[in-house]
Amino acid sequence: MKQKCILILSVIIFFLSPSALQLRLSNRFHIAQMKKGHINENSGKYKYEIKTFEVPVDHFSFTVKDKFNIRYLVNDTWHHENNAPIFFYTGNEGDIEVFAENTGFMWEIAPEFGATVIFAEHRYYGESMPFGNKSFSDPAHWGYLTSQQAIADYVDLIEYLRSNEIRKHSPVIIFGGSYGGMLSAWMRMKYPHIVQGAIAASAPILQFTGVSSCESFARIATSSYRAACDTCPKLIRRSWNVIMNVTSNDEGKKWLSENWKLCQPLTNSTHVEELQAFLEDVYGTIAMVNYPYETSFIVPLPPNPVKVFCNHLSNKSLTGKPLLTALYKALNVFTNYTGQTNCTDIKDASGNLGAQTWTYQACSEMLITICSDGVNDMFRSEPWDIKKISEDCFKKCGIHSDPYMVCKEYGCKDLSTATNIVFSNGLMDPWSGGGVLWNLSSSATAVIIPEGAHHIDLRGSNPRDPYSVILARKYHRYYIKQWIKQYRQKKNRILVT
Amino acid sequence: MKQKCILILSVIIFFLSPSALQLRLSNRFHIAQMKKGHINENSGKYKYEIKTFEVPVDHFSFTVKDKFNIRYLVNDTWHHENNAPIFFYTGNEGDIEVFAENTGFMWEIAPEFGATVIFAEHRYYGESMPFGNKSFSDPAHWGYLTSQQAIADYVDLIEYLRSNEIRKHSPVIIFGGSYGGMLSAWMRMKYPHIVQGAIAASAPILQFTGVSSCESFARIATSSYRAACDTCPKLIRRSWNVIMNVTSNDEGKKWLSENWKLCQPLTNSTHVEELQAFLEDVYGTIAMVNYPYETSFIVPLPPNPVKVFCNHLSNKSLTGKPLLTALYKALNVFTNYTGQTNCTDIKDASGNLGAQTWTYQACSEMLITICSDGVNDMFRSEPWDIKKISEDCFKKCGIHSDPYMVCKEYGCKDLSTATNIVFSNGLMDPWSGGGVLWNLSSSATAVIIPEGAHHIDLRGSNPRDPYSVILARKYHRYYIKQWIKQYRQKKNRILVT
Repeated sequence: MKQKCILILSVIIFFLSPSALQLRLSNRFHIAQMKKGHINENSGKYKYEIKTFEVPVDHFSFTVKDKFNIRYLVNDTWHHENNAPIFFYTGNEGDIEVFAENTGFMWEIAPEFGATVIFAEHRYYGESMPFGNKSFSDPAHWGYLTSQQAIADYVDLIEYLRSNEIRKHSPVIIFGGSYGGMLSAWMRMKYPHIVQGAIAASAPILQFTGVSSCESFARIATSSYRAACDTCPKLIRRSWNVIMNVTSNDEGKKWLSENWKLCQPLTNSTHVEELQAFLEDVYGTIAMVNYPYETSFIVPLPPNPVKVFCNHLSNKSLTGKPLLTALYKALNVFTNYTGQTNCTDIKDASGNLGAQTWTYQACSEMLITICSDGVNDMFRSEPWDIKKISEDCFKKCGIHSDPYMVCKEYGCKDLSTATNIVFSNGLMDPWSGGGVLWNLSSSATAVIIPEGAHHIDLRGSNPRDPYSVILARKYHRYYIKQWIKQYRQKKNRILVT
Repeated sequence: MKQKCILILSVIIFFLSPSALQLRLSNRFHIAQMKKGHINENSGKYKYEIKTFEVPVDHFSFTVKDKFNIRYLVNDTWHHENNAPIFFYTGNEGDIEVFAENTGFMWEIAPEFGATVIFAEHRYYGESMPFGNKSFSDPAHWGYLTSQQAIADYVDLIEYLRSNEIRKHSPVIIFGGSYGGMLSAWMRMKYPHIVQGAIAASAPILQFTGVSSCESFARIATSSYRAACDTCPKLIRRSWNVIMNVTSNDEGKKWLSENWKLCQPLTNSTHVEELQAFLEDVYGTIAMVNYPYETSFIVPLPPNPVKVFCNHLSNKSLTGKPLLTALYKALNVFTNYTGQTNCTDIKDASGNLGAQTWTYQACSEMLITICSDGVNDMFRSEPWDIKKISEDCFKKCGIHSDPYMVCKEYGCKDLSTATNIVFSNGLMDPWSGGGVLWNLSSSATAVIIPEGAHHIDLRGSNPRDPYSVILARKYHRYYIKQWIKQYRQKKNRILVT
């Protein structure tokens, strides 16, 4: 997986490439743009008011006194009793409405619990900009983009919600998928007195230096393709050299540009590199959203997109241009499922605000480890090289990366004191390798979804849901009930007045 | 307890007066000055190297890139085996050497555990100044004086210590008394993956708005005097009016100034007010350090100073000038136990750096509640008035106080998830009312020392120690052993590599 930033986690987590000579964001822009056109998949189904809430730019000093508004969505249709639960989504890297539309599970169970539903937008994303259009002008402005500050925003919002007498003793259950799930888990760990429990879906909180293997994403993605068709990942692996060979001269570049209907023709080796990085992103993304039903979460995709993709790559004798022709057909599952796309766009995404924002996080604290060896996986060989990443980040963001920051702040190797968290992971999800796959304690438990892709359990129910997903959601409801009960019992004791 | 900032907690925690029309720091200067002359009580007994360690000014943003050095003391005389424990004192509001000299318990048990002893200095105190002599020039400089930042300093220092291969898997036990104990407890709550257990002695982590009663300090102090002699607190209560009556004219002011050998004669009502605030501070402080043996912790004091003080106030018929004469004799127990003091100094302490520093903390996050009613206690009537305090703080520090900050950040009412903390409290200590006096969980336990004053258990052992203190220290050792054992067992499992 070379010179790229993979589009991962929920909607738009962008990981920096291990070896990125520059912090390219290539295809993510493409994907993010497509996403924007499709966030309303469930529009009309989930109703909410959009509100704003004032938070301090800096929760941890008395030097910066600036304040700004974060957005949040609220629906209290089902809130009929005092101190009814609050279901609170800890927004991650994107427009909060995208997460609201794609977290059907919360909407579906809210009536049963009489819960108020809240989706809070992560600072520096969507419309929650601390310094307006200057938010990314320099470190003085973007430097408050940290998970701790975002979690502190959510703490403030919850305290505000509970300042209303009718919610004074409302148990708060937090939910998050992907980076949002990491935030949920960390928030429960750091603020157990504020939130009573967390459903952390597909949260790779262990995908950091020295904890989980950096190869896991590439290997699980490859395994997902292999499960669809044994030949498929082999042909993908073979394609890297074929692409290099075919595009080694101008005629070949022209051939590929025309046959793949590239919006921008390949005219030099950098373009070829960008194309390959784009392909790797697409493979990773399809593996992540390999849901058993049609979705428009990231781009419009058919049910079981990995299988549909691999259907075009089942002939093991394919090589040379015929392999690339087959690969293009497979690629169309991702780039043109609707049949409406005129050309294949692999543009750099650095102009996209969401993508740019994640770049800062990925350069500062979220140094999630990704690598590939091209042998045990179908990607190009690329070691994890923190030195190079740090250099790239310094050029891009003016910061020297600290790969140990997250584990120092939240813990990685020893999470045995965590309580009231469900860590759910779909084993088809390439991110599951960085997830918590075993019970940390009697109340911080792992829920495994063998047939699940990236946080499928947080999505709305679907007739095609595999049983393991249905079961996972039952676990979630069980634990949520337990946490609420526990809180209410405790409330009646001396500690809570 | 009117218009004053009480000298409390360990050496020099200064609380802002509830009603302080201005943030006066009166007598604390006096006390702090005296303290400075006496920090070497045990000098020579405890040996350490003085080192420095670089930390970021701001741990929670990427905007501020300044760094500075905190001091720490280290003794690894007893460290003979790899991964031996680290005993780490989370420094509080003062020169770290003072705490090293007055925390004999750590020194006494270190050999038994083969532990390395570390005392870390709190930022903005002693010689650990983030911006040198500009550290208090304006909020841009002092704004990073928060408990979270201080705790993060300690996390960094521990990570650094463990970066040495011989300490890679050293269990870290943290110790703290008073505000230092609050830091220890909070640090274990927030960073259980970094520190394995905490001895939080006399840590009034519940002495905040809406949690503990603000009267507890005054009532327990009064009770301590009453235990020594029933008449004593009654005479103290009576003395307030007597002082006002006697000093209502110039002749009376002169009489009192001369008879009490005041360094600065009383010439107006403000002086009288300062004198009364000073007296209240002295009463509170004597109750805190009411140890059964001679100490020089804050000032040189005899064994059982409350009793010695009250010996002069046992004649219940005393009133008028004879009462004040007796009170002066009693006061001498505190102001002139050595017989070397030429005059009674009640000067404002605002020029003292340590005092000034605590003022910022007390104005920003450490809004510890203190009040008195003059009926159930021996102090002057003074309600807790957060509005007034906030106004005073704004004038003094340019900040609007937030009394709910600590409980939001660390929790107060619901601490049920806390683990591996011993909360020890001496019931003779006026601060015990804000301490954790019951077990929070099976591993976050309360140790009560009925005959104990302020964190006596952290002091070195003394033949006059009451049995409850000896027992408390046994508990501490037992829990420390448990925590170390637990950590070593876990280390051998999968989570710790």
